[in-house]
Amino acid sequence: MTKVWRGFASDNYAGVHPDVMAAIVAVNAGHQVAYGADETTARLDALAVSMFGAGASVFPVFNGTGANVVALQACANRWRAVICVSGAHINADEGGAPEKMAGLKLYGIESQDGKLTPELIATQVYDIGFVHRAQPAVVSITQTTELGTLYSPAEVRAIAEYCHANNLLLHMDGARLSNAAAALGVDFKAFTTDAGVDILSLGGTKIGAMGAEAIVVLSPALAEAIPFLRKTSMQLASKMRFVSAQLIALFEGGLAVRNGVHANAMAARLDAGLRTLGVNIPNVTQANAVFPIFTASQTESLMKQFKFYVWNHMTGQVRLMCSWDTTEGDVDALLTAVQKVLAE
Amino acid sequence: MTKVWRGFASDNYAGVHPDVMAAIVAVNAGHQVAYGADETTARLDALAVSMFGAGASVFPVFNGTGANVVALQACANRWRAVICVSGAHINADEGGAPEKMAGLKLYGIESQDGKLTPELIATQVYDIGFVHRAQPAVVSITQTTELGTLYSPAEVRAIAEYCHANNLLLHMDGARLSNAAAALGVDFKAFTTDAGVDILSLGGTKIGAMGAEAIVVLSPALAEAIPFLRKTSMQLASKMRFVSAQLIALFEGGLAVRNGVHANAMAARLDAGLRTLGVNIPNVTQANAVFPIFTASQTESLMKQFKFYVWNHMTGQVRLMCSWDTTEGDVDALLTAVQKVLAE
Amino acid sequence: MTKVWRGFASDNYAGVHPDVMAAIVAVNAGHQVAYGADETTARLDALAVSMFGAGASVFPVFNGTGANVVALQACANRWRAVICVSGAHINADEGGAPEKMAGLKLYGIESQDGKLTPELIATQVYDIGFVHRAQPAVVSITQTTELGTLYSPAEVRAIAEYCHANNLLLHMDGARLSNAAAALGVDFKAFTTDAGVDILSLGGTKIGAMGAEAIVVLSPALAEAIPFLRKTSMQLASKMRFVSAQLIALFEGGLAVRNGVHANAMAARLDAGLRTLGVNIPNVTQANAVFPIFTASQTESLMKQFKFYVWNHMTGQVRLMCSWDTTEGDVDALLTAVQKVLAE
Amino acid sequence: MTKVWRGFASDNYAGVHPDVMAAIVAVNAGHQVAYGADETTARLDALAVSMFGAGASVFPVFNGTGANVVALQACANRWRAVICVSGAHINADEGGAPEKMAGLKLYGIESQDGKLTPELIATQVYDIGFVHRAQPAVVSITQTTELGTLYSPAEVRAIAEYCHANNLLLHMDGARLSNAAAALGVDFKAFTTDAGVDILSLGGTKIGAMGAEAIVVLSPALAEAIPFLRKTSMQLASKMRFVSAQLIALFEGGLAVRNGVHANAMAARLDAGLRTLGVNIPNVTQANAVFPIFTASQTESLMKQFKFYVWNHMTGQVRLMCSWDTTEGDVDALLTAVQKVLAE
Repeated sequence: MTKVWRGFASDNYAGVHPDVMAAIVAVNAGHQVAYGADETTARLDALAVSMFGAGASVFPVFNGTGANVVALQACANRWRAVICVSGAHINADEGGAPEKMAGLKLYGIESQDGKLTPELIATQVYDIGFVHRAQPAVVSITQTTELGTLYSPAEVRAIAEYCHANNLLLHMDGARLSNAAAALGVDFKAFTTDAGVDILSLGGTKIGAMGAEAIVVLSPALAEAIPFLRKTSMQLASKMRFVSAQLIALFEGGLAVRNGVHANAMAARLDAGLRTLGVNIPNVTQANAVFPIFTASQTESLMKQFKFYVWNHMTGQVRLMCSWDTTEGDVDALLTAVQKVLAE
Repeated sequence: MTKVWRGFASDNYAGVHPDVMAAIVAVNAGHQVAYGADETTARLDALAVSMFGAGASVFPVFNGTGANVVALQACANRWRAVICVSGAHINADEGGAPEKMAGLKLYGIESQDGKLTPELIATQVYDIGFVHRAQPAVVSITQTTELGTLYSPAEVRAIAEYCHANNLLLHMDGARLSNAAAALGVDFKAFTTDAGVDILSLGGTKIGAMGAEAIVVLSPALAEAIPFLRKTSMQLASKMRFVSAQLIALFEGGLAVRNGVHANAMAARLDAGLRTLGVNIPNVTQANAVFPIFTASQTESLMKQFKFYVWNHMTGQVRLMCSWDTTEGDVDALLTAVQKVLAE
Repeated sequence: MTKVWRGFASDNYAGVHPDVMAAIVAVNAGHQVAYGADETTARLDALAVSMFGAGASVFPVFNGTGANVVALQACANRWRAVICVSGAHINADEGGAPEKMAGLKLYGIESQDGKLTPELIATQVYDIGFVHRAQPAVVSITQTTELGTLYSPAEVRAIAEYCHANNLLLHMDGARLSNAAAALGVDFKAFTTDAGVDILSLGGTKIGAMGAEAIVVLSPALAEAIPFLRKTSMQLASKMRFVSAQLIALFEGGLAVRNGVHANAMAARLDAGLRTLGVNIPNVTQANAVFPIFTASQTESLMKQFKFYVWNHMTGQVRLMCSWDTTEGDVDALLTAVQKVLAE
Repeated sequence: MTKVWRGFASDNYAGVHPDVMAAIVAVNAGHQVAYGADETTARLDALAVSMFGAGASVFPVFNGTGANVVALQACANRWRAVICVSGAHINADEGGAPEKMAGLKLYGIESQDGKLTPELIATQVYDIGFVHRAQPAVVSITQTTELGTLYSPAEVRAIAEYCHANNLLLHMDGARLSNAAAALGVDFKAFTTDAGVDILSLGGTKIGAMGAEAIVVLSPALAEAIPFLRKTSMQLASKMRFVSAQLIALFEGGLAVRNGVHANAMAARLDAGLRTLGVNIPNVTQANAVFPIFTASQTESLMKQFKFYVWNHMTGQVRLMCSWDTTEGDVDALLTAVQKVLAE
């Protein structure tokens, strides 16, 4: 067998947290009704209400792209469009699934820090009612963002207010929502339901699950379509108890947030270490990813020892992602390696 | 906690086979490259070649609908059609996903036993080159069928020969392929690659996995499109090692076929018992499902004790599905209950 | 230049009625606002109200497939299905456009005379709310049917009542609606709006236009989506005045119905003549098409002199279509030819 | 009847050139085979070869969006993407049809003058083979551009060479191709076939037709798919002779180019007059549109007398489009009005 290693490429390179694995094993007894009418998923339904409020409903799916594309279809009929940052996962990393699967046009807005604001959104809100332009139906923001930054509850609320005043819905891609909750130090509801988010993609995989995401509907009118969209979007798990069990393990007792606190702390340690070494990190590090700039030869040297991705081939910016299982030793080993390549 | 039970509703009501669960746990160490470039998936690649021949390639996905719809897209471009039986899973049980996700038209052919023949297929092969009719590109057969019947290797080969002589590809929906291998007593290759199948949906979930299916490409030219279709169809698992591990556990050492032998034997026991009781079972039972006809009141009585589905509301035909974990005691308890309702 | 001929292949082989051509020429002066905000289209709006009632709105499009697919999208969201006869134009002759363009599943029902009934429709209305089956949203009937038969106002009303009692909308494909009005001897409203039809594809091309069809919305709530669906379905004419002028020429002064009366009379003459000759015509001839059965060699002989289509290769049934410009001489020449081949 | 007027809003506000109308009337005799197998369309086939070379084939369609979306589908399978300028008609003015109808992702590149260059295109050609990014398949350029600028044959050739070296196809949106031919003073082939364009949307409507566009395939391998894509994209005219006749009238005897020469000359007159008045026109005027900048109040005043569009609400840039029927008097009247509002 090969040796165990950890890198900084992605939080989905990490394995499954032992508590999540134990929960999977624990629900493996006898038969359960397939496709979500099982006892474990019923528990998850109750958990979603406790996390997100009385109007919330939860729909487990397989992966983040699935959660996003199903959620966006619930918000936008056949001829409408989505407003997001250019670097949004839905725009840059889903292979065109929103266009191909849902026929949606995406209006990507350039953003230095990966965040939208009402002002930025407004640049794409025009020609309303004009058939020649795909009509915006929904704004999608990512929390934490693809650039490791964070929306405050007030920032989310300002966006939601703008959206609702302009007949737009607000979707939050929460593939790393637990890192956000950890960073903000508030409960999930404070920056989702209470801030006016209409529908949410709730991430489990990156924070310690094996493969478990969910659509959480916060504006109840959107819920009716989800079962049909989930089925036709090929995101309906037959043995759903095993997906739901993962989400319960993460969210019922606070494990996901604890994992988020840890991963964020590792990123903070890495950020601090790199800045001490004089490395240029253009954005503030607010969650579990650090985006420093290296020269091509520095990156090449470091990649011989650690897995990570170049984020911007033009600028040399790379992404260093910490996960629930990143250790201080991992971070310090990377810092030592960086120190060495800087000295070369 | 609730009490453990087992029914006859579906093989996806069953849990995960202990060996599969053990395999999942075993690959949970350290990081692995996401999205399929991991060591476990590499082992699965090799296994697929040993199972299906040198030209085979394997692409794990989340569920059966995903496997089917990705495979069919690889066979049929935007304006083409699929020929299948009316009762095919792709036509009757996928919520319209082939139409919605892939834009494909399905030509469903009525079939008493759930099987196609070259003669039946030929009824839909006409107006070739005529733009007003969606052009057939691929035939999809299900092995074992949705009605619990079985294609012999020779029957598959005859269909494949017809297809290839008519510029059609042959897809096999193998959600229950291991039950077929068990029933036929031959290896998988004998009734797939060797019989002329071009592309296959290989089932794991129903035969003991947690959630693991795969597209197996047997005609190598079809392989190039699959990674892109799998991604855009939202079927690409990030922590793929856990999906691949399930498939390896099932197929490397013969577990899937052993599970198939067992489930088929339980169905044979049930079939024999029901026929002894004088129950009408229109089709021959060749795999793990039995389709007897009950009166509405008989069905109602039985459903108070056992979960199962009415298959045809018109005729009263029901589906009794055995799974890898069905016991002789389960079968006998059902037979006893049937005897009792027949006597009422 | 080639010699002028007329055949029995299709009413779209015919040219443009002189009055329609004159109307096209008449609106060709100066500029008009594009995309429908022109004076001619405004007149058409008023005409639609006078024809179909106060709640009606009209949306000109290019062709019948366009009218149908736009209308069906307005009735059915992404995951839903359409109920129609197997031989419906939308199912058999649009190349799969409803599936490819709109993602809709079509449930085709076999029908001897090309007509649906509440009883036939009911065979596809089940598993409502069940995500595994594409949910019916709309019933589509064709008036006159693809087999030259006719729905009475009462038959339409019975279907509409069934639909509305079952949360289904009713679409009427009226590519030959003027032939129906002519045959029924009532105004358009009597068998559309007044009979409960929700949305209509109104044909112009086959009854004397150059290329002009329209979606007529009778249930006002469906109208909001049409401008966006028409645009994204690539059915929005820039110089729309020329499309609207054709429809006005046909419908304002009764020309379309007069053309229908004539074409129907020619078909009646042909039907009577053929029956006199002993030709087998399985269905009653109610509009402008006759569907007799010939032997293959008879058909071959006749096709050397007249253009027409074989409708069913199995039975030998052919379609003989009369159009607004078919003459008694044309019909009699065909009858003479038939008499001759029958004698051979 | 209302009074005749002309404005500067769009060349599709203009009517039909008398010669085109005469050609329509001329083909209206007797029956012709529908859907393109008519004598007029056969003449168009021959004309396309004479215009674009021996390998060219032509497929008439209804409108420009139809031509573009059918052509792009022929170039890009389900999971691929299109590179264009942000302001391209396909990206900004087709209501999202390429995404909705074809599932294509569009990579829009900002461009001051509406033109692409190999360097600009290269900014979107990366991550080739990487499933997470929609893979570019085709570059689409517009000739003349949406900003009234022009590609020289050499510029087109440089783009084509870049495309072909990078496994990309080159599509040209030629809604105003005749204006380009007029401006360049060369035949159509020189800046299309000979410059390496693979597929073309050929415009007729804006240069004097009633409603006639065509896909012209220059790389023969792309032709096979077009009949099926045209049908399923609802762009197949039944009475096609009337569409083909328009295109023949425009292109057989040079009418389209003469119309282009005239419209371009009117724009040049307008450009010169405005510059003389001191109006700011950021781009060079190379075809039939002028894009000056006015203040909001100037625009408001002018719009009381003339129809035209504001092109950029931020900058105040407006679009003044000349058409085949714009007169010197029309231009001078506008210039007089501008002089007056500038003086206010």
